[in-house]
Amino acid sequence: MSSNAAYEDLAARFRRIGVIGDALGILHWDQATIMPDGGAAGRAEQLATLSVLHHELLTAPEIGDLLAACEVDGGCADGDDWRPANLREMRRTYLHATAVPADLVDARSRANAACELEWRGARADNDYRRLLPSLEEVLRLSRDMAAAKADALGLSPYDALLDTYEPGARSAAIDGIFADHAAFLPNFLQEVLEFQASRPAPVTPKGPFPVETQRALGRQLMRTVGFDFERGRLDVSHHPFCGGSTGDIRITTRYDEADFTSSLMGVLHETGHAMYELGLPEAWHYQPVGGALGMAIHESQSLLVEMQVCRSRPFLAYAGPLMQKAFDGSGPAWEVDNLYRLYTRVEPGFIRVDADEVTYPAHIILRYRLERALIAGDLSLADLPGAWNDGMQELLGITPPDDGLGCLQDVHWPSGDFGYFPTYTMGAIAAAQLYAAARRDAPDLEGNIAAGDFAPLMAWLRTHVHGQGSRVTGDDLLTAATGSALDLAGFQNHLRARYLS
Amino acid sequence: MSSNAAYEDLAARFRRIGVIGDALGILHWDQATIMPDGGAAGRAEQLATLSVLHHELLTAPEIGDLLAACEVDGGCADGDDWRPANLREMRRTYLHATAVPADLVDARSRANAACELEWRGARADNDYRRLLPSLEEVLRLSRDMAAAKADALGLSPYDALLDTYEPGARSAAIDGIFADHAAFLPNFLQEVLEFQASRPAPVTPKGPFPVETQRALGRQLMRTVGFDFERGRLDVSHHPFCGGSTGDIRITTRYDEADFTSSLMGVLHETGHAMYELGLPEAWHYQPVGGALGMAIHESQSLLVEMQVCRSRPFLAYAGPLMQKAFDGSGPAWEVDNLYRLYTRVEPGFIRVDADEVTYPAHIILRYRLERALIAGDLSLADLPGAWNDGMQELLGITPPDDGLGCLQDVHWPSGDFGYFPTYTMGAIAAAQLYAAARRDAPDLEGNIAAGDFAPLMAWLRTHVHGQGSRVTGDDLLTAATGSALDLAGFQNHLRARYLS
Repeated sequence: MSSNAAYEDLAARFRRIGVIGDALGILHWDQATIMPDGGAAGRAEQLATLSVLHHELLTAPEIGDLLAACEVDGGCADGDDWRPANLREMRRTYLHATAVPADLVDARSRANAACELEWRGARADNDYRRLLPSLEEVLRLSRDMAAAKADALGLSPYDALLDTYEPGARSAAIDGIFADHAAFLPNFLQEVLEFQASRPAPVTPKGPFPVETQRALGRQLMRTVGFDFERGRLDVSHHPFCGGSTGDIRITTRYDEADFTSSLMGVLHETGHAMYELGLPEAWHYQPVGGALGMAIHESQSLLVEMQVCRSRPFLAYAGPLMQKAFDGSGPAWEVDNLYRLYTRVEPGFIRVDADEVTYPAHIILRYRLERALIAGDLSLADLPGAWNDGMQELLGITPPDDGLGCLQDVHWPSGDFGYFPTYTMGAIAAAQLYAAARRDAPDLEGNIAAGDFAPLMAWLRTHVHGQGSRVTGDDLLTAATGSALDLAGFQNHLRARYLS
Repeated sequence: MSSNAAYEDLAARFRRIGVIGDALGILHWDQATIMPDGGAAGRAEQLATLSVLHHELLTAPEIGDLLAACEVDGGCADGDDWRPANLREMRRTYLHATAVPADLVDARSRANAACELEWRGARADNDYRRLLPSLEEVLRLSRDMAAAKADALGLSPYDALLDTYEPGARSAAIDGIFADHAAFLPNFLQEVLEFQASRPAPVTPKGPFPVETQRALGRQLMRTVGFDFERGRLDVSHHPFCGGSTGDIRITTRYDEADFTSSLMGVLHETGHAMYELGLPEAWHYQPVGGALGMAIHESQSLLVEMQVCRSRPFLAYAGPLMQKAFDGSGPAWEVDNLYRLYTRVEPGFIRVDADEVTYPAHIILRYRLERALIAGDLSLADLPGAWNDGMQELLGITPPDDGLGCLQDVHWPSGDFGYFPTYTMGAIAAAQLYAAARRDAPDLEGNIAAGDFAPLMAWLRTHVHGQGSRVTGDDLLTAATGSALDLAGFQNHLRARYLS
């Protein structure tokens, strides 16, 4: 078989795999939003069956043979680098999928589901001991998987897990970045809290804020960012997410009539994810190279929209009056300066998902250190609560009063997701870096934002991020777009500018 | 391999096939109800990919081998007749799927899609000549498929098509039933129109009827029938249907603020379909024997609920006051007698989907005669409009002024669905037969209905129809439940009772 024919065969197989992934996307979305409870058992069957089919197609021995046939001439080059990059991503996906024996895939799937269920009760009851046996099993199997992937990929076990979520990311680089930021954070936080104390405390707008008004305002600001409702939806789910399928990207939120900010900022965050998905290169839809890069770059897009732009003063100068008008508000709570102080309020706390932009990385650095030690075997789960509380004290100066506010708060480890946490803060750093580069390339970007015009920003992101798919790694993408690989300086500059002036 | 092991292997394969069918059900539902337009291309990919996978799994040569291994000992009998019936349905499904060569499946899929598209324009423009070339191609391929299935199934070509939609149905029986009814109909219709003219003309309630009120009333009456919203939904689509997946049955309607009846009766009709799907035997979910019988028995359940029950005087005695209250109506239009006259109004017309219960079978008998002749090669498509108009004159005494009101009105033939039409009237006949038997077995059924209590009726249907799945053929099911195979007498008795007294 010619390497060209082998490539065409591979492309057809990966197209089928990608389309099944899209079908799974819609079925997941439906499950999380509108499925009646009675559909749960049947939906679990559908998701399991399509996931197994997806895995079977991806691990078919023919894929390995075709990849080998293709790779003899350096990737069937056809003039540009997309096809070789597609082959590279096919190989990476195939290696990840075939590295783990089928019985381990199955055992993990059961253990993770059982532990996640146990975790719901244990968290509610603040009972870490109850979780321990099932979490031990999850960790054991995750370490087995890490070892298997490490062998197949030629990486360390932890890096092999990390590579699942952010291709090409390596802990050697993250170690340095996180160590620098951990050193920066305690003093900086102190400065921020002092500066904040010197200014007027923000006033919270008083509701109720009707759900329909919140929804309409959310949709209006989604459109402002550039979201096209012909190619997606906004709905309600318990946990907000961005899902759906090619050309049909669906984000969700949930509404609280006493507080519109949490939903609105969440909607803008998910819109950032959605704009990435909607801007992926059409010519490469369904191919591995046409998909989004890993979770760090994905998170950079949501944080760029939410944190860098929508909590900035220029955006609030535009959106504040719209919010006030929508909710028929009056008084000082609705002044732009107040909204800005409110939306950039810093307050150390125990819960990651409630954390502000300044303290969030502390939560991540803590989890990163702990999960590296857990995977390496340097920390036992029995010692986790103590290590957690020591870390919180070191990084944020507070100690959780119980494990519900400590090491029981997140679902990631109980569901077997080790290696995911660092991508949140990598995304925050990349967001600052990308937004600084965009402002450098398009000098009046903040003026445009203040006028509600996101087109120049989105055009820049389309060129430098969205339209790149997975052609290069995250660091290469950042280097091409900003001049350097993942770099803490831009993020710390942003924090200083926003929180100390 | 033991025949028991072969059976277990088959059951696992058909389970997977059934689950993929369920996933397709949700994806179709989403496409018809809430998908943004931009998702159309991607959704077409998903549906095509899963349909091809479904077909590949169903036509795998191993299925034929396993069936043969199972059938040596008469169906791996395990004490009752469900397992042999399941094998029989597996065999039937497999024969239908493998009878048609892959290139013919593909050619039909393209030709039908192209012709359906052409039909939309041709119908709008009243231009049958424009449709003719693509319809010729669809008919040619449908005849090829009929011939291929006839060979495989040992049936006549038309019966092979019919068997696709209603397993076990044969034209020899339908010929007799339809000929009898065609002979009955002209005089009966005359009598009905005369009787109707002797009574007060019904008054139509005047709107507007707000969509939200219609939706709430529809949901209320769905619950009255027995629909469980924990196991399904009511939504909006252009063409009403009943879809979804196991344990999650979703019906749709569309609302007209000037007329609530059309949506409400449509909702009750689809609820009849849904109750069937929700009552299928749980132990046999995903297996061929656990699925609904063909379209005739399915339609009998929707028509039983809508036509037999919900347009009856006892039901209207219950529901009329609820309608009046919901819409805050007053005056003679809301009296139960008036609503009954309105909901049983007979008026010959050109359009099948607008037809009343009395004239509807004429539309079906016409189509049945014509499609039998088309498949047999006894009628050319060039002669179809003339034959159509002659038939309308004979059966209903009216001649369509143009083909849009004539042979262009239905999508079935342009989309290659020959053999489907007779199931509508077979369903109407079976509905009358089943409802008469239910009243015989549960003497105060109409009293229960008048009190809004559907539980006894649904219990009877669960035992005699829903819970039977596909264990026996439609005629055997009717014989067990009512004492005779499909039988016109009950239907004609019903028509006389309702329309002449």
